[in-house]
Amino acid sequence: MTYCVGLKLDKGILFMSDTRTNAGVDNISVFRKMVTWEKPGERVITVMTAGNLATTQAVISLLDEHGKAPEDRAVSVLEEPSMFRIARLVGETLRDVIRKQAGNDQSPNTFNATMIVGGQVAGAEPRLFLIYPEGNFIEASQDTPFFQIGETKYGRPILVRAYDRGMSFEEAAKLLLVSFDSTIKANLGVDLPIDYMAYEKDSFKIGEQGRIDTDDPYFGNVSVKWGEALRLAFSSLPDFKFKS
Amino acid sequence: MTYCVGLKLDKGILFMSDTRTNAGVDNISVFRKMVTWEKPGERVITVMTAGNLATTQAVISLLDEHGKAPEDRAVSVLEEPSMFRIARLVGETLRDVIRKQAGNDQSPNTFNATMIVGGQVAGAEPRLFLIYPEGNFIEASQDTPFFQIGETKYGRPILVRAYDRGMSFEEAAKLLLVSFDSTIKANLGVDLPIDYMAYEKDSFKIGEQGRIDTDDPYFGNVSVKWGEALRLAFSSLPDFKFKS
Repeated sequence: MTYCVGLKLDKGILFMSDTRTNAGVDNISVFRKMVTWEKPGERVITVMTAGNLATTQAVISLLDEHGKAPEDRAVSVLEEPSMFRIARLVGETLRDVIRKQAGNDQSPNTFNATMIVGGQVAGAEPRLFLIYPEGNFIEASQDTPFFQIGETKYGRPILVRAYDRGMSFEEAAKLLLVSFDSTIKANLGVDLPIDYMAYEKDSFKIGEQGRIDTDDPYFGNVSVKWGEALRLAFSSLPDFKFKS
Repeated sequence: MTYCVGLKLDKGILFMSDTRTNAGVDNISVFRKMVTWEKPGERVITVMTAGNLATTQAVISLLDEHGKAPEDRAVSVLEEPSMFRIARLVGETLRDVIRKQAGNDQSPNTFNATMIVGGQVAGAEPRLFLIYPEGNFIEASQDTPFFQIGETKYGRPILVRAYDRGMSFEEAAKLLLVSFDSTIKANLGVDLPIDYMAYEKDSFKIGEQGRIDTDDPYFGNVSVKWGEALRLAFSSLPDFKFKS
């Protein structure tokens, strides 16, 4: 399992992803699920992935043109003229990889993956897309300003309740860490370290980025404090009375 | 979809279930998913159901001996000597109904259902079980003091964080309503009205029970206040700082 969130803000886009992959509970590893391409001053593109690791790594390698000699590579996401075209490229690559890996297999879902693609190309606004295994995609809007992939349910209620597009990147990162904490507490397939990248609108360069490690004191503190704050919030609610 | 929770407390067991059933989004209905049998002074048994409605109704009817003339009925859950035997009876009935409905169908999961069974038989402690479609079951313990069935994920984080077995029934009902509110906000297949029944340990009679309707002012108030309390709890957390 996996948990990744892409969050659109007035200030830009915040990306956050966990790093746990597992094939059964006795075969777990740490893999980076976030990749960013940058052409400073012109574009920044970030892709986050959930699903079959062989599929997602193949897609990233193809986008990166790893099939060619280093001197011949022209990374395709850096060549497309718009975010829409980049989303289409990622979607088509994903669909083709899944089809090829599945072959005539009766359960192609085994090879499925979903992706979040976001960023900005000079001359247009930042855009954020959710790419389906079928290769089609949807775009974040005012009404649906964030996308989650992987184990999305445990961490959703707090996003729905506390998200505000006027948030600073620091506030949004705090919100996502609370959402990740709820997910990590409930699903063994999601865990620290957590990677993040904050893309600032119209900066056309990679923004604040980093990794929150398993022993990160801030994350540990937020996890404990959030438990306390939730219990306090709960006790502040009006009391229930039975009707009889 | 469905959401039901059975919560073990020092004071007894609290049962809560929603009432929405749907076959597609354009075919929704209200059905009670909680049934209680009582032999005052001797036992109280509650069953909550999630899954295929034809399956769960067939199981309840069989347990109720609806196949016999009213005067010949000896409701089997009122005859078994222990909660364990009742759980086994419910499990076997459920498994048999699913097998019969599925026949040689290649996708027997269509007919699946899960159930929560709880209550007390004189001479023993209250007990709470989760029944699987295969007919086997597990029992709630100190470590896992509650069971959820149906759409369990959205409402789980608050249960994990705020549950305390020393709670009063009123506090526990408030907790479950918050958990239901998070679930209702996220899944169209779960909705008000909500049914509840509080079984008080060693009372051997049906306790506080009732239905929280769509226009219930307390529920509406809790839903709004919980949003505010969450945002307040969130803003009380220490601020995140980027490392660079």
